[in-house]
Amino acid sequence: MNNFVFHNPTKILFGRNTISSIGSETAQLGTRGLLVYGSGSIKKNGIYQQVTDSLKLANVEITDHGGVQSNPLLSQVRQGIAKVKEHNLDVIIAVGGGSVLDCAKAITAGSLVEHDVWKFFTGKKSLKKTLPLTTVLTLAASGSEMNSGMVITNEITQEKFGFGHRLLYPKTSILDPETTYSVPADYTAFGAVDAIAHVLEFYMTAENKNAPVQDRLMEGLIINAMESCEKCLTNPQGYQGRADLMWTATLALNGLTAAGLGRVGFPMHMIEHSLSALYNIPHGAGLSAIMPGWLKWKIQTDPQKTAQLGQRVFNIDTSDKTKQATQTIDALSQWFDKVNSPTSLSSFNIPETDIPHIAKNALALAKIWRLKEYSAEIIEKILRLCLEGGPEI
Amino acid sequence: MNNFVFHNPTKILFGRNTISSIGSETAQLGTRGLLVYGSGSIKKNGIYQQVTDSLKLANVEITDHGGVQSNPLLSQVRQGIAKVKEHNLDVIIAVGGGSVLDCAKAITAGSLVEHDVWKFFTGKKSLKKTLPLTTVLTLAASGSEMNSGMVITNEITQEKFGFGHRLLYPKTSILDPETTYSVPADYTAFGAVDAIAHVLEFYMTAENKNAPVQDRLMEGLIINAMESCEKCLTNPQGYQGRADLMWTATLALNGLTAAGLGRVGFPMHMIEHSLSALYNIPHGAGLSAIMPGWLKWKIQTDPQKTAQLGQRVFNIDTSDKTKQATQTIDALSQWFDKVNSPTSLSSFNIPETDIPHIAKNALALAKIWRLKEYSAEIIEKILRLCLEGGPEI
Repeated sequence: MNNFVFHNPTKILFGRNTISSIGSETAQLGTRGLLVYGSGSIKKNGIYQQVTDSLKLANVEITDHGGVQSNPLLSQVRQGIAKVKEHNLDVIIAVGGGSVLDCAKAITAGSLVEHDVWKFFTGKKSLKKTLPLTTVLTLAASGSEMNSGMVITNEITQEKFGFGHRLLYPKTSILDPETTYSVPADYTAFGAVDAIAHVLEFYMTAENKNAPVQDRLMEGLIINAMESCEKCLTNPQGYQGRADLMWTATLALNGLTAAGLGRVGFPMHMIEHSLSALYNIPHGAGLSAIMPGWLKWKIQTDPQKTAQLGQRVFNIDTSDKTKQATQTIDALSQWFDKVNSPTSLSSFNIPETDIPHIAKNALALAKIWRLKEYSAEIIEKILRLCLEGGPEI
Repeated sequence: MNNFVFHNPTKILFGRNTISSIGSETAQLGTRGLLVYGSGSIKKNGIYQQVTDSLKLANVEITDHGGVQSNPLLSQVRQGIAKVKEHNLDVIIAVGGGSVLDCAKAITAGSLVEHDVWKFFTGKKSLKKTLPLTTVLTLAASGSEMNSGMVITNEITQEKFGFGHRLLYPKTSILDPETTYSVPADYTAFGAVDAIAHVLEFYMTAENKNAPVQDRLMEGLIINAMESCEKCLTNPQGYQGRADLMWTATLALNGLTAAGLGRVGFPMHMIEHSLSALYNIPHGAGLSAIMPGWLKWKIQTDPQKTAQLGQRVFNIDTSDKTKQATQTIDALSQWFDKVNSPTSLSSFNIPETDIPHIAKNALALAKIWRLKEYSAEIIEKILRLCLEGGPEI
C-alpha cells in the first residue's frame, strides 16, 4: 500500500424525509444563499418547494440560479459567480445531480477571487479559499456529493476539464433516494455506468498493483452498482434499489477506493470528456461506449487485473488470463447492453473519420491530467477499438 | 437501507515515515499536551523519541502519562484527567494501541467537567465538549483511531463498559504500519480477530437485513483481515501484510459498515467484556473464544446470514442453510485455530461453574447497551456453547 492522506469531512444525511434538514444545515454556514439547480424538474416534483421551505424556516435568504445543464457550462458558472458578488452571498446550495453540484462547486471556488474561475481548471491559479456548500442530491451517479472534484465544460474552447481540491468537499450532502424515483431508465443506467467507471479507473490504473483491501472494496461496489441498477430498472419506485444505487455511487468516488493505490488516472474519463464536449453526449453513455474499447487496449499488455475482475465479479474462471480478460470485457459489454447503455462509438453515429479530431481534443486534457502515456496516436488507436466491429485485438 | 448520518471527520495519515507529522498536526490544536502511552515499549523501539522530537519541533510542551495497560483502567483515566487539570493542558496525544487510545479519549471527555468521568459510561451524564485528540497507532485491532467509541474497565466494580459520542473522533490519526513490526504473533492474531468481530457484530445483528452494499463491504473486510493476518504471521516485518491489516482494522469500525443497517448490537463484545473484566484476558482472545459459541446460538433461529458469510467468505456451497451455517462456524473456528487464537472458554481454564457469575456481570452491560433479548439465562446458554465439547445444537 502506498502512503496516503484520507480526510473526507462531508457530513451525509441519508434517507427518507431528510430534505427538510437542508435549512438547518445551511444556516450554520451562512444566511444569504445562492440556490443552484437544473432544468426545473425539481419545481415539478416538489423538491424545490421542500428545499426553499426549509431554507426559509431557517432564515436563509435565497437568490435563484436555475437552468444548469448536463455537462455544465463555464458560462453558467460565471453567471453564478456574478450573482454571488452582486448580492454579497455567503453560502451555496446545490439541488440536483452531478452537473448541478459541479457547477455549484465551481461557483464556491470562483466567488472569492478576482480572476476568471477557468484558471483553476487550466492550472494557472491555485485555490486558496471557497464559499461553503450544501447539497441535495437527485441523481445517483457522479459521487460529487462526497468528494472534492468537479468537471466543467468551456463551451468556447470546447474543453471539458476536471479539477479537484480539498476545499471543494460539500459541508453537508443530503441523499434522499426517493428523489431519484422519477429518473428515467436511461439516466438511471448511465448513473450506474458512471459509478462503475469511477471504480474501474482506479482499479485498472493503480500505480500500486498490490492492494487487496481496496480491490475487494471496489469489486463489491461494481457488483452492487450492477445489481441495484437492475432493481431500479425493474421497479423504478422501489426504495431498496434506489437507496443501494445512490450509496454505491457515493462510495465509488469518495476517496476510499483510491486511498493507498498511489497514482491513479482517469484515462476513460479523459477520452469521454471529449465526446461530451464535442457531441454533448450524456456522460455515462459516453463512458460505457469507451470502457470496452479502452479495456481491449489495456489487456493487450496487462490482462491480469481485468482477469481478476472477471473472476470475482462475473465468476469467469479459467487459467488463461488473456482469455479470462477478454471474456470479462464481453461480460461487461453484455451488461451494458442489458441496461441499454451504449457499447461503442457507433451507437452515437460518430464516424471513424471523426477520430483524429476527438483524439486531438482529448490530448489537451491528457496533458493537464499528466496522462503521459497517452499520445494522439494511442488515443486514436483506443477510439478505433471503441467502434462497433472495430479492429480485432 | 435505513436512514443514517455518516460524518467521520478524522484525518488519516497512513504510511511509512508519517510519525514526524504528529507535531505539526497537534500544534494546530493546542500547545500543552498530555502524552498518553502504554507499558513503555515505545521507549525501546524509538517511537517515543520520534513522537517527542516532532512535538518539540512544533513547540508542543508535553506532560507524560505512561503505563496505560491493556483493558485500560478507570483509575488511569482519572489520573490523566488530574494531570490535565493540574497543568492546564489543552490537547491530548495518544501513542499506542486501542487501550491507550481509549484511555486518552476518556481523558478528553473527563477533563472539561467537574463530575467523575465514569458517569458518561453509566449514562448518568451526557457529553457536551472534549479536548482535541491526536493519535499515533501501534496496533491493528480496535479501530479506535478512526471512530468515536471507547471502552474502559472500572476495576472497583469490575465493569468493562463502552461509550460512544461524535465528539470522541480523533482529529488526526497517524497509521505507520512499520510500528507494528514488533507486535508478537499472538497479539497480531488477536488484533485481526478483533477486526473480524467488529465486522461480524454488525453483519449478524443488523436491524435491516437487506443491506447488500454493506454486506459486500463487510465480507471483503473479513477476507482481508484473515489474509493479511496470515501474511503478518508468516513475515512479521513484511510491509504489505502489516499495512493491509492496519487499514482493514480501521475500516472495520469507522462507521461505514454500520451506515444504513439501522440498530446494531455488540452482543459478543458484551459477553467478552466480562471475560476481560473478570480474568484480564486479552480482548481479541476472549472474542475468538466467544464467537463460535455465540454463532451456534444465533443459527438455531437464524442461519441465513451465517450461511451467506460461509458462501461468500469461505466458499461453502450447499442449499441446506443450516448445514451451510454450521460449516461456516467450523471454518471460522479452524481459522482461529490456524492463527492460534482460542476457540472456547476452555482455553482459559474457565470452569463451567463460573458461568453464572460471568453471565451476571455481562447482564449489567446488556442493560446499559439495551440488548434486551439477552437475559442471564440466555447469556448462560451462550457461554455453555462456548465451552469445549459444549452442548450439541
